[in-house]
Amino acid sequence: MTLDPLPLAQALIRCRSVTPADDGALAVLEAALAPLGFACHRLRFGAVENLFAIRGQGAPHLMFAGHTDVVPAGDAGWSVDPFGGEVRDGRLMGRGATDMKGGVAAWVAAVATVLDRRPGLPGMLSLLITGDEEGPAVDGTVKVLGWLAAQDLVPDCCVVGEPTSKVALGDTIKVGRRGSLNAAITVHGTQGHSAYPQRADNPVHRLVRALAALTAEPLDQGTAFFEPSTLQVTSVDVGNPATNVIPPSATARLNIRFNDRHTEASLTALLRDVLAREAPRHTLEVSCSGESFLTRPGPFVAALERAVQAECGLAPKLDTGGGTSDARFIARHCPVAELGAVGATMHQVDESTPVAELRALARLYARVIEEVQG
Amino acid sequence: MTLDPLPLAQALIRCRSVTPADDGALAVLEAALAPLGFACHRLRFGAVENLFAIRGQGAPHLMFAGHTDVVPAGDAGWSVDPFGGEVRDGRLMGRGATDMKGGVAAWVAAVATVLDRRPGLPGMLSLLITGDEEGPAVDGTVKVLGWLAAQDLVPDCCVVGEPTSKVALGDTIKVGRRGSLNAAITVHGTQGHSAYPQRADNPVHRLVRALAALTAEPLDQGTAFFEPSTLQVTSVDVGNPATNVIPPSATARLNIRFNDRHTEASLTALLRDVLAREAPRHTLEVSCSGESFLTRPGPFVAALERAVQAECGLAPKLDTGGGTSDARFIARHCPVAELGAVGATMHQVDESTPVAELRALARLYARVIEEVQG
Repeated sequence: MTLDPLPLAQALIRCRSVTPADDGALAVLEAALAPLGFACHRLRFGAVENLFAIRGQGAPHLMFAGHTDVVPAGDAGWSVDPFGGEVRDGRLMGRGATDMKGGVAAWVAAVATVLDRRPGLPGMLSLLITGDEEGPAVDGTVKVLGWLAAQDLVPDCCVVGEPTSKVALGDTIKVGRRGSLNAAITVHGTQGHSAYPQRADNPVHRLVRALAALTAEPLDQGTAFFEPSTLQVTSVDVGNPATNVIPPSATARLNIRFNDRHTEASLTALLRDVLAREAPRHTLEVSCSGESFLTRPGPFVAALERAVQAECGLAPKLDTGGGTSDARFIARHCPVAELGAVGATMHQVDESTPVAELRALARLYARVIEEVQG
Repeated sequence: MTLDPLPLAQALIRCRSVTPADDGALAVLEAALAPLGFACHRLRFGAVENLFAIRGQGAPHLMFAGHTDVVPAGDAGWSVDPFGGEVRDGRLMGRGATDMKGGVAAWVAAVATVLDRRPGLPGMLSLLITGDEEGPAVDGTVKVLGWLAAQDLVPDCCVVGEPTSKVALGDTIKVGRRGSLNAAITVHGTQGHSAYPQRADNPVHRLVRALAALTAEPLDQGTAFFEPSTLQVTSVDVGNPATNVIPPSATARLNIRFNDRHTEASLTALLRDVLAREAPRHTLEVSCSGESFLTRPGPFVAALERAVQAECGLAPKLDTGGGTSDARFIARHCPVAELGAVGATMHQVDESTPVAELRALARLYARVIEEVQG
């Protein structure tokens, strides 16, 4: 028998835990986990409350990672109270229903179900629940992972409960994410009169040549698991109001989403190469919000695939699309994959999940635990 | 004997005729020209006072074109009253001393001198004096030329009294000027998330490709009389603050200084060709402040060269450099060349001209009149 995740999901939604507020969400979770034998560690970093809960002994150590913070409800247009946890027409309504209070509740229900069936489950189960996933992601998962490393509690593998499913529950497992890098390029020239360019050095011409070179060819053709990397120039700004003046400098900003053929270091080197050729006098600022990562096919991913096949009756697609998630931090420590609800309504008005799907997710997670721990 | 241009130049400088103000400058000129037999026509267009003065009968008709308006004195730093017309250390000081009240006074003195020597001078002499050369140049020379065409008084050739000399009086005759064209290009794309460029159409990429193509090669290698044409991108602006958004449009502005191998029409076609290839969805605005013009070597230019050689003892350089002047409008009607004082101090603080050079300019202009009318 599966424990029903609905009451816990409702209790979590009723906490107004818009990042970085907690509003009692972690206490709700602790109250559900403690009776299951979990030792709960509240870890506060800066303004962010985090929870690490763990039970059992020995290997394997399977961690579930998630968050109880949510994005704001938004201006208007909700047909229900976004923090009411109401069920309407068979759907659990509310901010976080899919992203990802529903997923957290489903995992806790799954744990209860598995322990009910197998009180002597081998290994360790843990949950890393942060209140800073939708925000700067500085005082959340990263800091807790540092604490885990210091405690020698790094898990063997990790499931992140993000809503990865596209149409049907289980249809997509994210086994990686592209990295994201922002760069700001300022090309310095020599100001002058546009009628006498031989006495000046037009930084705009140098910059457009550099940008044309950077965008002339795709960065790569993609890999077995990744789409091609992309480089998009998002802005070029000079702000020169005078038609008869060659400006002293010109600035561009660009965003690169990159697969596992690149790193922050290799992309920075690429930018420097092109700039050295076209615009030796430049300033380059690079900010990488996350390297790409990939959990290659292996026992962990195979266990997830078997669980999906058994519970949902379909073969999941191993995907690496989309933006970034906290999985990028966890990937530095252990194999990690993301598997969760259908994400169609996440961050939207009237975010919701069918109650039946929430319960199916709990069953799926129970299978995952059994496949990995069994 | 040459009439002294100094008192007339001083009287003109004492009029505070900063564009479009006249402050009596044209009345001073009329008072000097009427006794020489000129019929004076005051032509007011908009806020601008213009003067067309003419005497004589038949061909050839030599026109002198100039202006009595001046640029502002500027903030500070003058060692004399910029509108005092003072002579100090042998130099006539004041705003307009070189550009070009001195030149206007020198021409009037030259006319008086020639008529004194040859009362029966054949042909017609005229002066087109505008008060709108340093300003928008809309209600000045262009409008007077229209009036002249309507009156069937278009001259056979024209000397413009701009301060063309570089180091020594007469060393440079401007026989042409490059044209100047400004263009504003807006490339339209499709906004989107920078992580999913396949669903968007980045206008910045299209724009930098177009600009790189336009600036890859010189427009030409120059001609016998002209330096190479130049194309300078003066600004590129997107103004997109978001690193994760592909913007909907991107704008560039450019300035082209072009020789007689190009026209507004040919350059517009060039821009459209490149844009059609790289950015079919675009808006192009072209504004041409003046076509290029060239007065080719011939009897008129030869007459000017002989006058310089005889009076200044040097062979003038035929030049087409620099910005634009009202000569670009006159060139549509008749051969035109610019010949005047050494322009080193024009538009500067303590603008001035040596009195001896002012008198030499009057002698040079007298030679010009005799060479052309003789």
